Amino acid sequence: MSNLSVSDAQTCVLKHANRRSTEVVRLQEALGRVLAEEIHANRDQPPCDVAAMDGFAMRSGDLSDAATELVVIEDIKAGDQPQKTVQPGQCARIMTGAPVPAGADAVIRVEDTRQLADGGIEIQQSVAPGNDIRLRGEGMRDGQVVLFPGTEITPALIGVLATVKSAQVRVYRRPRVAILATGDELEDLDEAFDPEKIPNSNSYALMAQVQALGIEPVLLGIARDDTKQLAELLSQGLEFDVLMVTGGTSVGVHDHVRPTLESLGVAMHFWRVEMRPGHPVALGSTERALVFGLPGNPVSSMVCFEQFVLPALRRMMGHTRLFRRTITARLAHEFCVPPGRTTFVRVALERDASGAYIARSTGTQSSGVLLSMALADGLLVVPASRAGLAAGEYATVQLIDGSFYQSASAMEDEQ
Amino acid sequence: MSNLSVSDAQTCVLKHANRRSTEVVRLQEALGRVLAEEIHANRDQPPCDVAAMDGFAMRSGDLSDAATELVVIEDIKAGDQPQKTVQPGQCARIMTGAPVPAGADAVIRVEDTRQLADGGIEIQQSVAPGNDIRLRGEGMRDGQVVLFPGTEITPALIGVLATVKSAQVRVYRRPRVAILATGDELEDLDEAFDPEKIPNSNSYALMAQVQALGIEPVLLGIARDDTKQLAELLSQGLEFDVLMVTGGTSVGVHDHVRPTLESLGVAMHFWRVEMRPGHPVALGSTERALVFGLPGNPVSSMVCFEQFVLPALRRMMGHTRLFRRTITARLAHEFCVPPGRTTFVRVALERDASGAYIARSTGTQSSGVLLSMALADGLLVVPASRAGLAAGEYATVQLIDGSFYQSASAMEDEQ
Repeated sequence: MSNLSVSDAQTCVLKHANRRSTEVVRLQEALGRVLAEEIHANRDQPPCDVAAMDGFAMRSGDLSDAATELVVIEDIKAGDQPQKTVQPGQCARIMTGAPVPAGADAVIRVEDTRQLADGGIEIQQSVAPGNDIRLRGEGMRDGQVVLFPGTEITPALIGVLATVKSAQVRVYRRPRVAILATGDELEDLDEAFDPEKIPNSNSYALMAQVQALGIEPVLLGIARDDTKQLAELLSQGLEFDVLMVTGGTSVGVHDHVRPTLESLGVAMHFWRVEMRPGHPVALGSTERALVFGLPGNPVSSMVCFEQFVLPALRRMMGHTRLFRRTITARLAHEFCVPPGRTTFVRVALERDASGAYIARSTGTQSSGVLLSMALADGLLVVPASRAGLAAGEYATVQLIDGSFYQSASAMEDEQ
Repeated sequence: MSNLSVSDAQTCVLKHANRRSTEVVRLQEALGRVLAEEIHANRDQPPCDVAAMDGFAMRSGDLSDAATELVVIEDIKAGDQPQKTVQPGQCARIMTGAPVPAGADAVIRVEDTRQLADGGIEIQQSVAPGNDIRLRGEGMRDGQVVLFPGTEITPALIGVLATVKSAQVRVYRRPRVAILATGDELEDLDEAFDPEKIPNSNSYALMAQVQALGIEPVLLGIARDDTKQLAELLSQGLEFDVLMVTGGTSVGVHDHVRPTLESLGVAMHFWRVEMRPGHPVALGSTERALVFGLPGNPVSSMVCFEQFVLPALRRMMGHTRLFRRTITARLAHEFCVPPGRTTFVRVALERDASGAYIARSTGTQSSGVLLSMALADGLLVVPASRAGLAAGEYATVQLIDGSFYQSASAMEDEQ
């Protein structure tokens, strides 16, 4: 199979990534999951016309630009039922969320009134009928479908689910994910220090990338260059929904991973993508599992995760927004890359005086230098057709974890 | 105290929000936390000059644009030590990450070579010295400070920490957070349906906003309009680092929250901010706790959380990026708002053909309509000085939870 473009490889990955089955979880554990059922309103919300502000409910026809005095006939707080009907020249003191009494057609904020010595109030402005009243059913109507399957459960969704008393919700199951590193040269976190060896960072960086999606992966450790052990560990991994194998999938003669996977019944779909870093990235599948062969270089492995594994995992979880949000940034300097492959360049973002984003390289782009990934807010995408981008050009930057917050308040943009 | 601007209120909040103490956690639980110690490299990384690609290590002086034949003297895989010195006319087969043998000064990719029948290889291009070699210490040097306190632990950071074998790391403690709803009119998730009541959604939406920051809050339930019970529950809440109280802090006569807080020794710093929604938002503090009084309307409460509670919690966790990332969007239509207060408008985002963001209202902006918050990708910020923004204007949008992913791959921007 010839080398695929990033875009074609993503299409191939998503063709093999299907939504998992569903399960029921408590509302307290539903954040970040995807709804697998239709949710209906169980009441009108608000249940009647209610005050939108603390103030006074009155007849809007009573008011004018001249000062109007009104007699306060009742105090109504949220949870109360009004006892009286507001007549001309009267009003009721009312709290936010409390039912608007019969006779009244508007609410005026307490700040726009003046307390009189006799207990009445004075108002010196007119308001439109309906002012500061939330109408019955404005938020939701009894029986209405308020949420559809496939909706991501954000904090506001949790609020909507609580409103309709969904203490439990049906969501898509999260895929089970396993991570396996390969290679005699690797030294694991719990192994003694050996200056000749290379620490296993991939398993942990990938673990954290998976954790950031709300999934706790299982680390299968390191398969040494021993065919039998490799086959055993790969077999274990194929019991999961997704198996990531790092290292050992390139074309070198010592690579056992691909033939071993094939001997275990894995159909390979691609093993090369025209991208940098991350060229040797592979996809295979069985009836049950999706298998990603990721490069041994830490940065390559993380970048491949972003482009292929992340959208697959999100699709499996039931999401429809599968890809990292992108922004357009102006380039602070020239970016030279070899043409022929889509290149992902680690960049830090800052804002100029107009609020526009400016992208700057985080330093050496060697695929072995994880620190430059750690400093990155995003990945600048240099199209395969280009041998670099010029200073001042505008280009796409994928926002990655850690970039969702910024130092400056949105209020500073105002100034 | 006069009403504060959003910006002044944020400054006041952050003045009272301090980093918590530190604790040691396993690397597996460190994602999203903030480093509270300096991290040093414990080795050169890579430990020696290594191949950056699978290919052949040779003497760059041997090559030219004409075809060169080289004898393969050795196979070196990652984890091996080379046994021979590469002489003129010789090369060694080498795997990514394997040590470059003595004598060789460059690596050429296997794809750029041709296998000969006699076991040798043919190369028909020249390469520069150092080609596809990662130099010893290029990633990190033994003893070098690689990470500083105050750094957010992203997936790449987890990779760096694994590289230096930090199986445990010292991080800032997460604040403990309690949430208390108030009001006779509220019906909690586990209470029987009463058509006259208003479901308690605030506690759960706030719970989820806190969960999204990696903190599991404690829900203290609903305080009814009973001074003694309210005082008891507020006292419980003041044992936490942060207490959020929803409802009951406006100027209505039935509001017991503020006087009760004051009687419990809470110093109030503000209780009004010039914003919409969310005008009645209050801040108080004791020696130990920060207390937020949030509006009873679900959307107001969520918007106030975004502007004030979120940056405070992030500061307490040790973060330096405290605020939601903002983007600049073009407005799809006119946005009319009353002037005098900063207005936060719920908007959905889409991209135009050039990749620029376009913001569109998610519908009714009533502060009681949580569904329009659920549909929002962000909050459009209309400055207090403006009575709205015109169609086609560019304005700041705060990205909120659920907006970090998009439907389109970054590859589509390329086209």
